[in-house]
Order: sequence, then structure tokens, then C-alpha cells
Amino acid sequence: MTKRMIVGVDIGGTTIKIALLDPNGEIITKTQIPTPVSEGEDAIIGKMTNTIDQLMAEQGFTKEEAYGIGIGVPGPVDTDTGFVYEAVNLGIKDTALKAKTEALTGLPTYVENDANAAALGEMWRGAGQGTDNLVAITLGTGIGGGIIIDGKIVHGVKGVGGEIGHVTVNPDGPLCNCGKKGCMERYGSATAIILGIETAAKEGRSAYLAKQLAEKGSLTAKDAFDAAAEGDLVAQEVIDQAAFYTGFGLSHIANLLNPAKIVIGGGVSAAGDALFSLIRKSFDTYTWKIAADSCEILPATLGNDAGVIGAGWLVKQGESK
Amino acid sequence: MTKRMIVGVDIGGTTIKIALLDPNGEIITKTQIPTPVSEGEDAIIGKMTNTIDQLMAEQGFTKEEAYGIGIGVPGPVDTDTGFVYEAVNLGIKDTALKAKTEALTGLPTYVENDANAAALGEMWRGAGQGTDNLVAITLGTGIGGGIIIDGKIVHGVKGVGGEIGHVTVNPDGPLCNCGKKGCMERYGSATAIILGIETAAKEGRSAYLAKQLAEKGSLTAKDAFDAAAEGDLVAQEVIDQAAFYTGFGLSHIANLLNPAKIVIGGGVSAAGDALFSLIRKSFDTYTWKIAADSCEILPATLGNDAGVIGAGWLVKQGESK
Repeated sequence: MTKRMIVGVDIGGTTIKIALLDPNGEIITKTQIPTPVSEGEDAIIGKMTNTIDQLMAEQGFTKEEAYGIGIGVPGPVDTDTGFVYEAVNLGIKDTALKAKTEALTGLPTYVENDANAAALGEMWRGAGQGTDNLVAITLGTGIGGGIIIDGKIVHGVKGVGGEIGHVTVNPDGPLCNCGKKGCMERYGSATAIILGIETAAKEGRSAYLAKQLAEKGSLTAKDAFDAAAEGDLVAQEVIDQAAFYTGFGLSHIANLLNPAKIVIGGGVSAAGDALFSLIRKSFDTYTWKIAADSCEILPATLGNDAGVIGAGWLVKQGESK
Repeated sequence: MTKRMIVGVDIGGTTIKIALLDPNGEIITKTQIPTPVSEGEDAIIGKMTNTIDQLMAEQGFTKEEAYGIGIGVPGPVDTDTGFVYEAVNLGIKDTALKAKTEALTGLPTYVENDANAAALGEMWRGAGQGTDNLVAITLGTGIGGGIIIDGKIVHGVKGVGGEIGHVTVNPDGPLCNCGKKGCMERYGSATAIILGIETAAKEGRSAYLAKQLAEKGSLTAKDAFDAAAEGDLVAQEVIDQAAFYTGFGLSHIANLLNPAKIVIGGGVSAAGDALFSLIRKSFDTYTWKIAADSCEILPATLGNDAGVIGAGWLVKQGESK
């Protein structure tokens, strides 16, 4: 009996992460290379497939031992054809990613949006284990997410299902990059939290934050939680607002979909209970009791590996069809 | 080749509607009987099955010609077992509706929540035809709804998926029967619209509405639209608010699920474009452009037949497994 293996890839605007996984989703080995964004799609795909070949050779795997390749990309995707409509951060558009990867490698290839791949990763090997009705969100530069019902990602009719970060949580809120007002990511993302405390620092509303900003030049979401832990009320206010609107936005998901778990990852989630207890409080206030009681809100456990593991799940799922 | 037939049933708090459908969902004949709520579950089930037998006999159908029975009930249901957890308006609880109906009729029986059945009806034979990614809501006494993804109802982990009426559209809004504040049905339901205009009439904010109320004793949602059409600004304000929050609540659905259609039924929807244009405006303001552009908002077309037709769909779907 030969050993078998799955390739999981997470193409981001900065790095391409590649992992070889065993059939249970355990990482055998992983690596990353810079994404050659300025060189175009063929360079991105070529360097990705070369690195896959190298990694397989290093580990002594033949092509026959690979089930296939799963790839997560930051943009909307047609998962049936593996066609990437657009990935702004990769500088690519209308890219036949599946077809080109299959031509270069001879391996069956599956493509998914990266936030959806991360959600599948958490379902398979992370905090989402044990249910196939869950939602995973990432509180980072923006808020990304994936909705999984009966084990399948909700893509919607034009592939933009799961745009959790752009649910409007305050109809009169500040303008978002998407052109709408008061989106969840204008409150709960790292970007929003940093904007909140940096603005307070510049406006002199917090001497503590002003001092931090002067010393460091710029602040992080972690600085907000550290300042709040030190008793800074302005930082606490920013965090309270972020958690309130995050929990409020998640209540819509629970009222509509009644998932068993909501898994929260991304840099902001590292704040732990200082964040989760506030999100939970807001969530419980606005969620139907049966839906609230049946939903766990949990920190993601796979970190940056969620994407490559979830990409591997695409192969596993494709194989079982 | 014998003719074949499906039985569709919609059990409500006032009447039990029963229809015989051909395999394409066309109604062959239908009838209704009062729901014997005070007599308990066995009376409800017994009178239902007796009426089914009668109706089949009248139409010359044998048991062998029936594919089965589909039933919609107003409450949460375990669709796998056909067990009704609770239907307050029927006065029943923990009822093995599928098992009891099958024992009495010998026909395979399928049970679903009534709002979900109505959504399936609109998908099969109504405004939802042509897509299997849609949401149907009913603006009536409350707001009920069903979410359909890839042709299947979203039940969630405890069967309370699709509680669209209890999505919070205003965190500081008025108290709802469910115990939460600012639910969508506190604005968009007939009950909410009537409360709005009756309160305005009693507080003397509209002479027109006060006169109507004095003449009629009570008002309807139609009175609100009629008054607005006559130029009554207070009635228009109530309608504007109802439409704003309905469109806003629907935006969450579109941002999360990207459905092809949202179908709106129930008494309030009879107002037509005076309502739909306002809902659309609010919806477009708060929905991601791709999701908004790919989503039609349409009036339901099946009226009170949606429930029995959708119940019939359960049988059709069950047969094809």
C-alpha cells in the first residue's frame, strides 16, 4: 500500500503558502514563497507548481501518490470551472487557474475563495470539528468569512455568498471601501480598531494612547487591547464598539442560519476572552434564544494554516464524489 | 399508465387546507376544514386524514395512486423524523405527526415548517421558479420565511434556521414578542403597520386616520396604504419605516447568501409597487453591489396555495431520493 498525499495552496498578495497533507489533513511539510504579483498570472502559477514539484521531490512523493491540488485565492471564484474572476491583491483577472495548474502538473485541481478555504480548514481540522453547519470569520485587515451548511460552502448565485464583513451593522455608520455605510468590517476589523485608537491618540482623547503612538509611530490592534488592560477607557470604548457590532452582525447569521459554531480567527481574535466575552454578550442580546443557545462562538485554532488545510479539503471532498 | 397524485396539507391555527396535486404541482382539487385545536392532536390528525380520504374518493383516486402526503405546520419540526416539537397555534407539542399520519393512511408522509413549505411552493410553482437559491418571506401577522440553498431548506442545527422576522434591524427598537428588541417583524409585519397607524390615529397625529378608525373600529395594513395614496403623511411615514427596515433586513440575507430571488408574500405584499419600490431602495443601499444586482425581489404568486403546493414538493423531493 503506497502512501498518499494532498497538496494545499493558499495564494495571498504577499506569499504563496504550500503544504503537503496526509489524507487526514495533517501537515507533512510546508513552505512559502513570495507571490510574484508584478510578473503576472503565468509566473504566479509557474512558481507555485515548481515549488509543489520541489516539495514533493524532497519528501519522496511521486505524482501518482498525490490525490490532487487545492488552491485558495483572495477573490471570487467559479468553483465548478476553477476560474478566478478577479483577485485584486494578486493583480490577476479572468484566470483559468484550475485548467492551467492541471496542464502544468497533471493533477486534478480545485479552486476556492481563500476565506471559504479557511472556513473548510477549521471545519476539517480546527475549531469547527464535529459539525458541518458553521461559519468562520477572520478579523484582520478586513473581515472575511465562509458559511458552511451541510458541509458545503454557500457560494450564492454569483459567488459572493459569505460577505460577512459587508453586512451593514449601522445604517448611519462610516463609509466602507465597498461604497456602503456602516459595514461590520468598519468596526470589527484590525484596521477599524487601529483607526479608532490612532484617531483618539491624535485628538488627544487619551494621553496613554498618544504616548504609545509617539513612541511607536503607529499602533496595532494588540495595542488597543493592551491599553484597555492598563485601564485606558478610550481604548476600551473602541474595543466595546468593535465587539458590539461584531456580535450584532453575527446575530443575523445565527437568526438566519442557526449554525452550531461560529469560529473567529485573524489577528484581532488573539485578544482572547477580552474580546470573545463582549462579542458573546452582544450576540446573545440579538439572537433568538434557541439559536443562541445552540451556537458556540470559538477562537479559530489553525492560524495561518487554515487556508492550506482547507484547500486540501477541497481535494478530499472532490475525491469522494 | 395510471394517473398519479400528491397530497399537500397546510395545517394552520384556524383551518386545515388540503389539496390534491398532480406530479407537476398543479392543483387538481382543494378543500379546507376548521382546525379542531381544542380537541387535541389525535382529532387534528384524524380529521385531516378523513378529509384526505374523502377528497381522494371524490376524485376517484386509490391509495396506490398517491405518492404520499406532505404537511406544513406552524412550528419547529424535525424533518427527518416528522416530529413536531411545538406548534403553539395548534396547541400541540412533541407530536409524532409523520408516524401517526402514516399509521392512519399507509402513505409516506413528509413534515415541514409551514413557512418553509410556502417557500418551497413558490420555488416549485410560484415566483421562485427558475432558481434553487432563493428566500421567501411572508409579511402577515408576523414575518415568516424560508431560506432555500441549492434546492434545500436551511434548517440549521436546531431547526430554527430562516427566522427572518427575528433578525434585529434596530438594536434600540421596540420590544418584540420573542423577547428581543427591534426585530424586523416589529416594523414590516401587518401587525406593526396597523399598530403604527392606529397609534397615530389615537394620538391625533392624523385626522384622516382618526376618522377611519372611528368609522371602522379598527384598521388594516391596507388602510395604511390607502391613506398614504390619499396623501396622508403619517401613514406614508409608517410605510416608509416598514419598507426601510424590511429592505435593510433583506440586505443581510443577500450579503450573506447571495440568492437569485427574494419572494415576498402575505397580506402586506398586496400593496404592490407602493411597497416593493421602497423595499428595493433600502435593499440596494445596504447590499453589496454584485449581490444586489444578482437578486430579484418579487411578489409571491401562489397566495394561500403556497403552503399546500410546497407540502406537495416535499413528497416529490422525497420520492426522487
